Amino acid sequence: MRKSEIDTPALILDLDLVEENIATMAEYFRARPQKLRPHFKTPKTAEIARRQLAAGAIGITAAKLGEAEVLARAGLGPILIANQVAGETKIDRLFAVAARVETIATVESEFNVRELEAGGARAGRSLDVIIEVDTGMHRCGAETPDETVALARRISRGPLRYRGVMGYEGHAVLLPDPLKREATAREALSILSRHVNALREAGLAPEIVSAGGTGTYDIAGSWPDVTEVQAGSYVFMDGAYRVVRPDLGKPALTLLTTVISRRGDRAIIDAGMKSLTNEFGPPQGKDLPVKVTRLSEEHGHLAAGSLEIAPGSKIEIVPSHGDTTINLHSEYYVVRGDDVVAIWPIEGARAYR
Amino acid sequence: MRKSEIDTPALILDLDLVEENIATMAEYFRARPQKLRPHFKTPKTAEIARRQLAAGAIGITAAKLGEAEVLARAGLGPILIANQVAGETKIDRLFAVAARVETIATVESEFNVRELEAGGARAGRSLDVIIEVDTGMHRCGAETPDETVALARRISRGPLRYRGVMGYEGHAVLLPDPLKREATAREALSILSRHVNALREAGLAPEIVSAGGTGTYDIAGSWPDVTEVQAGSYVFMDGAYRVVRPDLGKPALTLLTTVISRRGDRAIIDAGMKSLTNEFGPPQGKDLPVKVTRLSEEHGHLAAGSLEIAPGSKIEIVPSHGDTTINLHSEYYVVRGDDVVAIWPIEGARAYR
Repeated sequence: MRKSEIDTPALILDLDLVEENIATMAEYFRARPQKLRPHFKTPKTAEIARRQLAAGAIGITAAKLGEAEVLARAGLGPILIANQVAGETKIDRLFAVAARVETIATVESEFNVRELEAGGARAGRSLDVIIEVDTGMHRCGAETPDETVALARRISRGPLRYRGVMGYEGHAVLLPDPLKREATAREALSILSRHVNALREAGLAPEIVSAGGTGTYDIAGSWPDVTEVQAGSYVFMDGAYRVVRPDLGKPALTLLTTVISRRGDRAIIDAGMKSLTNEFGPPQGKDLPVKVTRLSEEHGHLAAGSLEIAPGSKIEIVPSHGDTTINLHSEYYVVRGDDVVAIWPIEGARAYR
Repeated sequence: MRKSEIDTPALILDLDLVEENIATMAEYFRARPQKLRPHFKTPKTAEIARRQLAAGAIGITAAKLGEAEVLARAGLGPILIANQVAGETKIDRLFAVAARVETIATVESEFNVRELEAGGARAGRSLDVIIEVDTGMHRCGAETPDETVALARRISRGPLRYRGVMGYEGHAVLLPDPLKREATAREALSILSRHVNALREAGLAPEIVSAGGTGTYDIAGSWPDVTEVQAGSYVFMDGAYRVVRPDLGKPALTLLTTVISRRGDRAIIDAGMKSLTNEFGPPQGKDLPVKVTRLSEEHGHLAAGSLEIAPGSKIEIVPSHGDTTINLHSEYYVVRGDDVVAIWPIEGARAYR
């Protein structure tokens, strides 16, 4: 099958560029004490995780239990779930995942610890855990070193295995100004280091210190206290990250669309909010200088000016936010040049609990 | 199973309210010349369409071919696809749908007509079509009565069956000011009437004139030239439509979530952009006075003030935009009171081409 024969809207992966992006990031971490544990929340397919592990990643980071289950079924890991798993149903599934693949869970309060301990008692197993630290994003995470130390002590006295901490500087990774991004990331990592130091002083030195995203991989990846980086978007480099890190990788993900209407200075494509997202700004054409200025549910409005774009034309769009766009799709069409060489299922997509 | 036992995040349908909303809208259309052909793009499950047809709907409106295929597999119709179907692959599938269930396609240019005629030749079948008119939304649709008449003539001379026109006033349906909404809808319907009159004068009187949404169902539903209304959201009444039409139905759709963190004045729920949308404003609590002020990919930030909400609590959120939130999920948990009475698959969800 040729790329031009794919029905639309469809996600296209340029496998040459994917491999290049994986190699570029792997190369950065090859000779460092810090290691890479790439985030699964972006690609959501075992095919990518397998290639990242083959390139030297020390494991995979997951954003939720459903993603960890996809990885465990594929026998890929070790897995770090960088989010709280709550509720008996999920915690029982979490222990089932941990029985198949080495798994590290993340806690941020005594509530999580108690729930996981009860789950461990039900499963007759222990579980590795790290503590989430709020390094400035103000979402989840222990807020003071005292809180982190108290939580680490609490864990160490019980049946769970205390392994370390994580602090994701999500408020820094997409700042377009490089100086501001670096300063914000350094401030966040300094907070993380204060928690790490307090743990060391309490005799609870963390073995794992996880941080960083694609926008800050080299800041977190060269921070002495950090042991691993959880970047994910680097594998595809969506529109938002191309602006933030033009130095890093190449845009490997596009959405193939068909023009269904052409009137005045607008062209309408067959991709709306149900197959493309725009919370990170207007998606743009890959080969054509067009912007998706507005999304209806099933229509995308292209500012096409006087470009010769006839109804029926196929146009490749670079998503501005890969993660949420990928979440709307069930498969990738994987191409080398214009040839479709594989179709990969996006096993972790949707509201996968 | 009780509602409180459902794993989260999960879409909940209150079946009593769904039935009430279906009955309310059916009652409005019972004694009118205008009829209801409810839109499938909201519920995306055959279970709802079946109930709407049983309540008197004359058929179902679909937003894309994938939805029409779901309906055809369930034997539900007649189907009006209120959007252009483009490309050989889809058009061959369209004729396969039409072979199973009476189907009406929508065209807006000669390009569509030529493609459908070629598809008909391949399939050895004819197909009913209506013409989309741009009544002010400036998306797709013929822009002048002359263009519509020329297109109707063009169709009538060929193998397709010309049936009428549609003009969806999508720019009016969600205007919160009732006077502005009514004025904008009337202006749009007046444009549609000018096209209808031109067709009549040309001896091409349309049998079908489709218009209207949930926000304007009674304006379109009492407009003399209109023959059918394509409202869809009325069945669930999401947050946006509750503001626009507080007189109409009851909120029958919620997202059940779990609080995973509680710090300061914020509570974090386990529903982010990958299971809840906010392009129509912040989703709100059903029973609690809370707003979802921010969405990360897997986290929702609740402005919880001093409310006593502990981690582990389950909270029901009313989506502000049902259609796109539903698109992120694979099933509805259908409840009566607190009892789960069914699980319905959302067959039309995702980037279903």
